[in-house]
Amino acid sequence: MQNNPRTFVSIMHANNEIATLLPLEEVSKLCRKYNALFHSDTVQTMGHYPFDLSVMDIDFITCAAHKFHGPKGVGLLYISKEVQVRPLIEGGGQERNMRAGTENLYGVVGFAKALELAITHLETDRAHILSLKSYLMQRLQELGDVRFNGDADGACLYTVLNVSFPRTETTEMLLMNLDMKGICVSGGSACSSGADMGSHVIRAVAPGVDRVPIRFSFCKHNTNAELDQLVETLKDSL
Amino acid sequence: MQNNPRTFVSIMHANNEIATLLPLEEVSKLCRKYNALFHSDTVQTMGHYPFDLSVMDIDFITCAAHKFHGPKGVGLLYISKEVQVRPLIEGGGQERNMRAGTENLYGVVGFAKALELAITHLETDRAHILSLKSYLMQRLQELGDVRFNGDADGACLYTVLNVSFPRTETTEMLLMNLDMKGICVSGGSACSSGADMGSHVIRAVAPGVDRVPIRFSFCKHNTNAELDQLVETLKDSL
Repeated sequence: MQNNPRTFVSIMHANNEIATLLPLEEVSKLCRKYNALFHSDTVQTMGHYPFDLSVMDIDFITCAAHKFHGPKGVGLLYISKEVQVRPLIEGGGQERNMRAGTENLYGVVGFAKALELAITHLETDRAHILSLKSYLMQRLQELGDVRFNGDADGACLYTVLNVSFPRTETTEMLLMNLDMKGICVSGGSACSSGADMGSHVIRAVAPGVDRVPIRFSFCKHNTNAELDQLVETLKDSL
Repeated sequence: MQNNPRTFVSIMHANNEIATLLPLEEVSKLCRKYNALFHSDTVQTMGHYPFDLSVMDIDFITCAAHKFHGPKGVGLLYISKEVQVRPLIEGGGQERNMRAGTENLYGVVGFAKALELAITHLETDRAHILSLKSYLMQRLQELGDVRFNGDADGACLYTVLNVSFPRTETTEMLLMNLDMKGICVSGGSACSSGADMGSHVIRAVAPGVDRVPIRFSFCKHNTNAELDQLVETLKDSL
């Protein structure tokens, strides 16, 4: 891109921590208006929302298989026919000279199959997961001072719910306590797991507020019974 | 490495086309003598020769799982504790900040298991494969004007044999004819398959000689019976 004077806009489709959805089409139109290149990271949304790239006016899309029950370590970069990029990894002529190296064949096959299944059952799975999220939001009210980060009732990814609890000695141990009970949730993004630096996203949406954020995420395999168990565990842990 | 004034030497341990082996220890000593950094691509040799990195004086080693019956699309970069490099792919903190992105977990597990098996059975497999190679070299003599590219009897990878045939109308179709008979061989490196530009390696070792090179490679699963079948097919195809 070194010799390309166009502005490059890169915005994730859904925020990975608080689930806020980007109005993809509107941003795309803005980018077109100003002749900017537009990339969206759809890692949270691919397989969970329909994408028709023959209609969408977008230059680049990235996503990863493990977000829709595919294998870990394999993803996709979509490049519009309208643009050209230089490869990051040069060498052999694999993948039309765009990425050198022997292909992760079984990963690619797994990616394709998982995406096919996700798209086929998208509406059924979405309805189920959305009902899980609504149910948890409703049940969390029982716990008292619970707030939802992001626009949890609005334009929001249905697979993620970010909740904040008052900071106390017990809520600071919440992640660990839930983990010990076999409940896997996170305090921030997976990319920064291990690092306990707090979330720049939470700081941005709730500046000056010192609470403990927890990100719950749901999949098609989850059940209301599991959420009941989660709420009971939270009651014991708060 | 931008700010590192040291020379960077990168030489493959075994040539992927003609199997010539690099005297790794000698090159390493030369690099030490001149304070150069030394990287070797061991993609052809890892799992087929013993590597004791606690003894070897080498800065970087790369290899790939599919060369020792592991999964495709996963490899390894060894970096000596003595040196530091900047990551090529930045972002998340995965792999100690050396390569961002969710890890190809099952690929990594497959890599480790395949290498373990390869090392455990290394001597048995080597003896078997070496006998296959010797047997093929001997039987190929029956075909008349057959030459071996590289030092086939000398310091040479035992899994690869590069043979050249006189250029005729039939030998030019050899790769395709063998392929149609279910025999998979190659005319050059896999990285340049599809491109019919000839091999720069063959041009270098046999300058001015216009013959048809074929690379045969062997694994522990091959048998003498398969080689007999190959030789008979070659007799029909020449």
